[in-house]
Amino acid sequence: MPDTDLLSLQIDHVGILQSRYEQVLEDHGYDGLLISSGAAPMCYGDDQSWHFQGYGPFLHWTGLAGFEHAWLLIRKGKKPQLSLHQPVDFWHASLEVSQEPWLEKFDLRFSESPSAPELEGISQLAVIGDPALLAGLPGDENPGALCNALDETRVHKTAYEIACLAQANKLAIAGHHAARDAFLAGASEFEINLAYQRATQQREVDAPYNSIIGVNGHAGILHYQYYDTAAPAKSRSLLIDAGVRYRGYCSDITRTTAGVGEGRFAALVHGLEQLQFRLCKMVAPGVDYLDIHRKTHFGIAALLSAAGLVEGLSDEEQVSEGITRAFFPHGIGHFLGVQVHDVAGKPVAPPDDAPFLRLTRTLEAGMVVTIEPGLYFIPSLLAPILSGPLGHHINRSLLDELQGCGGIRIEDNVVVTESGYRNLTREVEA
Amino acid sequence: MPDTDLLSLQIDHVGILQSRYEQVLEDHGYDGLLISSGAAPMCYGDDQSWHFQGYGPFLHWTGLAGFEHAWLLIRKGKKPQLSLHQPVDFWHASLEVSQEPWLEKFDLRFSESPSAPELEGISQLAVIGDPALLAGLPGDENPGALCNALDETRVHKTAYEIACLAQANKLAIAGHHAARDAFLAGASEFEINLAYQRATQQREVDAPYNSIIGVNGHAGILHYQYYDTAAPAKSRSLLIDAGVRYRGYCSDITRTTAGVGEGRFAALVHGLEQLQFRLCKMVAPGVDYLDIHRKTHFGIAALLSAAGLVEGLSDEEQVSEGITRAFFPHGIGHFLGVQVHDVAGKPVAPPDDAPFLRLTRTLEAGMVVTIEPGLYFIPSLLAPILSGPLGHHINRSLLDELQGCGGIRIEDNVVVTESGYRNLTREVEA
Repeated sequence: MPDTDLLSLQIDHVGILQSRYEQVLEDHGYDGLLISSGAAPMCYGDDQSWHFQGYGPFLHWTGLAGFEHAWLLIRKGKKPQLSLHQPVDFWHASLEVSQEPWLEKFDLRFSESPSAPELEGISQLAVIGDPALLAGLPGDENPGALCNALDETRVHKTAYEIACLAQANKLAIAGHHAARDAFLAGASEFEINLAYQRATQQREVDAPYNSIIGVNGHAGILHYQYYDTAAPAKSRSLLIDAGVRYRGYCSDITRTTAGVGEGRFAALVHGLEQLQFRLCKMVAPGVDYLDIHRKTHFGIAALLSAAGLVEGLSDEEQVSEGITRAFFPHGIGHFLGVQVHDVAGKPVAPPDDAPFLRLTRTLEAGMVVTIEPGLYFIPSLLAPILSGPLGHHINRSLLDELQGCGGIRIEDNVVVTESGYRNLTREVEA
Repeated sequence: MPDTDLLSLQIDHVGILQSRYEQVLEDHGYDGLLISSGAAPMCYGDDQSWHFQGYGPFLHWTGLAGFEHAWLLIRKGKKPQLSLHQPVDFWHASLEVSQEPWLEKFDLRFSESPSAPELEGISQLAVIGDPALLAGLPGDENPGALCNALDETRVHKTAYEIACLAQANKLAIAGHHAARDAFLAGASEFEINLAYQRATQQREVDAPYNSIIGVNGHAGILHYQYYDTAAPAKSRSLLIDAGVRYRGYCSDITRTTAGVGEGRFAALVHGLEQLQFRLCKMVAPGVDYLDIHRKTHFGIAALLSAAGLVEGLSDEEQVSEGITRAFFPHGIGHFLGVQVHDVAGKPVAPPDDAPFLRLTRTLEAGMVVTIEPGLYFIPSLLAPILSGPLGHHINRSLLDELQGCGGIRIEDNVVVTESGYRNLTREVEA
């Protein structure tokens, strides 16, 4: 059972959502909204289904990540009606709902059928969720303008949401520590994944995203998706990007650890961490997130010069000539919430110099973002630089030495506060 | 690298498939067949996808379980053309294909695009796979009669397939032993799942199906799908139903272990195992699988009488009155192959007295089936019996005692041979 403060905050959260939703529904001319939690689709040609994780708007209201075929009906001035699917079924266990105070704010029902509940007395209805579950229902299905406005209700986190994100960070950091210890003891990627699961008490299938666990060169593959079962002869580096889901809310944390005797790589990790601290300090209301992204490139340039990887080019030249982009090809981060890449981050497309940036907004209090600079040795991105006119500015022998360490990424989860920022990750990392 | 025998058998396997497929294509008037490996669908409203496992016919030919957006083109008299998707991508690792002899039997290509390969010189084309991947392709999409005939090519396993299934059993048995040891040491379901992963060196997401790991009462939920992170005060029973995928092929094994001091439950486990041995011995060409299912009910009746759970009713009465169905509600098993519930098992629907039976055919040499009798204490199924006219035949105090152990299932993977059967599970279980 979570603490009383959290449960009390959740009551407020539900009230705030009711108010936000009522406004959006009124703005768009609806008097009722039905939200489907979704259901795991079946694998084609098989009788096995994928492992389920719930639909964002449903999680936003309830935090109930594993409930398939659940429905939530929102109307103005009425208690939200939550219908949970509990078939008479000796094949499967029914997920139990803890008797917590927030449920008293809902009209809770249990249904033996996976179908939507009765919808009476609603003249202008919208239904949202996976279209596969909405067939035959009345009302407008996933109307675009309404869905965009509902996404916007998720941008400014309530105090409850921030408390959940903080707890998701605390749980994940225990996993990161266990992963680091396993790596330093010479474990394989596969074993490190087991250590992370054990320390977080979270099954792989319940993680908010596929944990990235790259040892040595694999640390240089941004979304490395496999785990070697054999440890390398020498463990030079570990990059682990892994989170935890707590009451629906995701953490998304990356740590990089240098192996014993990897002094040059360790110095780079330290340098990137100092940069990451400075970037986190930029987080404040009114700051254009793109500016943090662009600032990162200058920080990377300074780091490359300081490490002696790039010689004879100014920071400005490194950035303008695309050298920093070869070492740091992704965006500086994204929104975080009930989805790891939370919605509504890109009302406008990112500019040409930051094509992978997932967040293009000016920061406002209540937003939660990741700050995740990286520095990688990726052969396919470095090759054009090495063979081009600026190739002689790169210290190849040092690059060759570091290549086997793959790369570095350091990622925290940061709240935009009224006056600046709060780093949810560092505050729990002793 | 697998042993030379297996690699040699695989060459034969590809030749046999080519011949079976050519016949089926000719029978159905096609001169070309394109098979899509599939791709993991995205979660609705999110940028995360489900974890992928390949489409049956593609696995049947290649065993490559993790390859999304791959394509296989089969034509009469031509090498099968295998096109693997290898984008220029610094985000993800490309799955590597081991340089094994079977690949020489294929025209192997790599494509940067996820799209289907060029299709020239084919006048009558069929394309099969997840319809979401087939949009815009020429040819007939998933024609029913052809798909049924292709399913039938998977019913009689080649020597290669049986060797793979045997190895999948060997790997899984190591996991079952580790799970049993963890249970006897007092581990939680969550920890038992970690022990199984470690011993099999298989990630949870790569398992052929969700491992069922039920301690105490959870052993009585047939497809129990969660894992408690806390161990119970007293570990009375463990039911684990878990497999391994090896070169595409699945094992599907269940073991039940009684906790220390659970003499009565242990005796029932022993009794069900003796019954399971007898049922395995029934496996032979010409035997109606339904007869094995029905025989199971009489075995369960005898066991219930011997244990004193049912008193004063003959075996025949127990079966005809539905008492054995309350204790053993599922089917005796199913086909096994590249899918855990392999295809083509139910050309006719099961009879009314065996509604969940997944295999309704007469056994033939080369088929591989599971034999999985069970005996459970499921309150929702026993309640009508207990409150009905035969309720006094049930020993309630004994039932109350055993209820907390949940149930028993014992499952092996069995090949139908020319002269009888081969139990792939027991032969590797020392």
